[in-house]
Amino acid sequence: MRKVNIILVGYGNVGKAFLKLIQQKEEVCQEKYGLDLRVAAVVRRQKALIYCQPQKPGRVLEKLQDNVEGKNSANWEENVSLEEIIDTFQPGVLVECTPTDSKTGGPGLQYIRLALDRDWNVVTANKGPLVMDFQGLMDKARQKNLSLKISGATAAALPTIDVALNSLAGSEILKFEGIVNGTTNFILTKMGEGSNFSDALKEAQERGIAETDPSQDVDGWDTAYKVLLLTNAIFFTSKSLSDVKVQGITHINPALIQESQKEGKKLKLLGRMSRRGEDFSLEVVLEAINKTHPLFYVDGTEKGITFETDTMSTITVIGGKSDPTGTAAALLKDLINIYM
Amino acid sequence: MRKVNIILVGYGNVGKAFLKLIQQKEEVCQEKYGLDLRVAAVVRRQKALIYCQPQKPGRVLEKLQDNVEGKNSANWEENVSLEEIIDTFQPGVLVECTPTDSKTGGPGLQYIRLALDRDWNVVTANKGPLVMDFQGLMDKARQKNLSLKISGATAAALPTIDVALNSLAGSEILKFEGIVNGTTNFILTKMGEGSNFSDALKEAQERGIAETDPSQDVDGWDTAYKVLLLTNAIFFTSKSLSDVKVQGITHINPALIQESQKEGKKLKLLGRMSRRGEDFSLEVVLEAINKTHPLFYVDGTEKGITFETDTMSTITVIGGKSDPTGTAAALLKDLINIYM
Repeated sequence: MRKVNIILVGYGNVGKAFLKLIQQKEEVCQEKYGLDLRVAAVVRRQKALIYCQPQKPGRVLEKLQDNVEGKNSANWEENVSLEEIIDTFQPGVLVECTPTDSKTGGPGLQYIRLALDRDWNVVTANKGPLVMDFQGLMDKARQKNLSLKISGATAAALPTIDVALNSLAGSEILKFEGIVNGTTNFILTKMGEGSNFSDALKEAQERGIAETDPSQDVDGWDTAYKVLLLTNAIFFTSKSLSDVKVQGITHINPALIQESQKEGKKLKLLGRMSRRGEDFSLEVVLEAINKTHPLFYVDGTEKGITFETDTMSTITVIGGKSDPTGTAAALLKDLINIYM
Repeated sequence: MRKVNIILVGYGNVGKAFLKLIQQKEEVCQEKYGLDLRVAAVVRRQKALIYCQPQKPGRVLEKLQDNVEGKNSANWEENVSLEEIIDTFQPGVLVECTPTDSKTGGPGLQYIRLALDRDWNVVTANKGPLVMDFQGLMDKARQKNLSLKISGATAAALPTIDVALNSLAGSEILKFEGIVNGTTNFILTKMGEGSNFSDALKEAQERGIAETDPSQDVDGWDTAYKVLLLTNAIFFTSKSLSDVKVQGITHINPALIQESQKEGKKLKLLGRMSRRGEDFSLEVVLEAINKTHPLFYVDGTEKGITFETDTMSTITVIGGKSDPTGTAAALLKDLINIYM
């Protein structure tokens, strides 16, 4: 049995779901994968829960659940830095779930750098740091023979990078197209059923699918981040956000939807990479696709990605839970695969 | 650069496609994966081409192509056994492509056992030996810390085992359903378009989709083998063929097809595993599925598989080339992943 120390940074919806998941999966991790996951610290903003003896997830969760009920049995220490914490423990895995900030990378960027510097592996659900400095972070990880795994940031429970790197090993990926943002796909599906944009957005917000500020989604940026990260991860390129042509769905003419429906088509926001040799084209486009397109039936909040390859033909993957549990499951998958 | 000796056993359509593929992918294997693939021997029936200095695939192919043109520059040695050959070389990977014999396992079973005994990794496209003695072979491989990889035998270019083991790591697979036999799916699709069974089968044979003796496919056995192998590979179980309830498509009543179409359904031959804890149910069933089924649009020779999981929801994979090149690509993928 291998003991794996975990530092969880970020304790929002995804961080909470992750902690709950590793408690629920404690036995599976031990028996199937030989991993004894121990929580060394939970870090949120300026506070941290630190366990000098890293604890089983269930123990940590107990304290934190008490806390929610106001009993405050979890001892959050104030004003501790990740740097102080990380040096206390035998390196393991930093699980990074702080909110995405794609302008500066946010604190997550410093956390990931620090973790790699101190010989910790990293799994992350945070696109910000990866959008800002993918190459730098990956180089750091490679130099130190560490893993930096990013499924949580690239469509989470929908397998994308795994399929590209493992299942298509030896094949050349000529193109991929993905419906990788649930919010926009939900809105487009609703508009296809007759809603207008603002009603559809409102419904998405009411159902907890879209955020209060939906601009990252509806302006196409979330899809752009994923196309960028997938491309850099699959091809070891160092493309940046400025290399992605980005289109959103806010200015759709309702007539366009009716027209495409008349032709038996559907409007979809596609994140697309296509290449000729080393010449890459990255874009987020609103496109009317027809029934023969492998993603035609990907509706609502569902996601999907299709790869065109030279030797294996087309491989399409569809599905995966689009919620904090799904993201947590993607983080756990990455964590397990570090040690397999 | 890591030199990898390859012994290719079986030189039919798949073996030929594999040799061609590794020639075509020589640069990719070297530059992207750091693997210098060298052919030590090609073995077919009682004959073998043996290279005391293992050769680059291109050199071997040259000789063999000459041979096809009658120049006979390839020196096939007669009456050599794999045992004699295998001991000559530093262990590498045995690529097993002899024809499937699911009654006895055929010579492939002995080849795989021998290879593992002599510390060779194995990638195989041959279902026979795996159906006969999956547990025995896998145990042997595990004891010796070798790889026995079977993508080539489990829907080939359609990723199945990879997705289950890597992409769904930490998730519990509660059920999977696959359309994993191209021939039957082609026939059912044609029958849905109005053909009768024998016309559809004839067309499949004329187009090289179905074999002259199509019974393994149309009686459901090929699907049964794949369900069995997938189950044993994913859950480390030791189920046998007698644990699979098998139905074929030869006795379909045309009225049944019309009836399901009226209801907006399609008849599909599904290979299904479902479980409650350690209680597994394996079956091949002809079933009318409706539009909400993730495999509803998998038509013609296309294949697909859908996994129901506890934490990631449903993940569906569709596509993959259904020909010797696709199988060869699956063998190469497995080979590369042994060393990654």
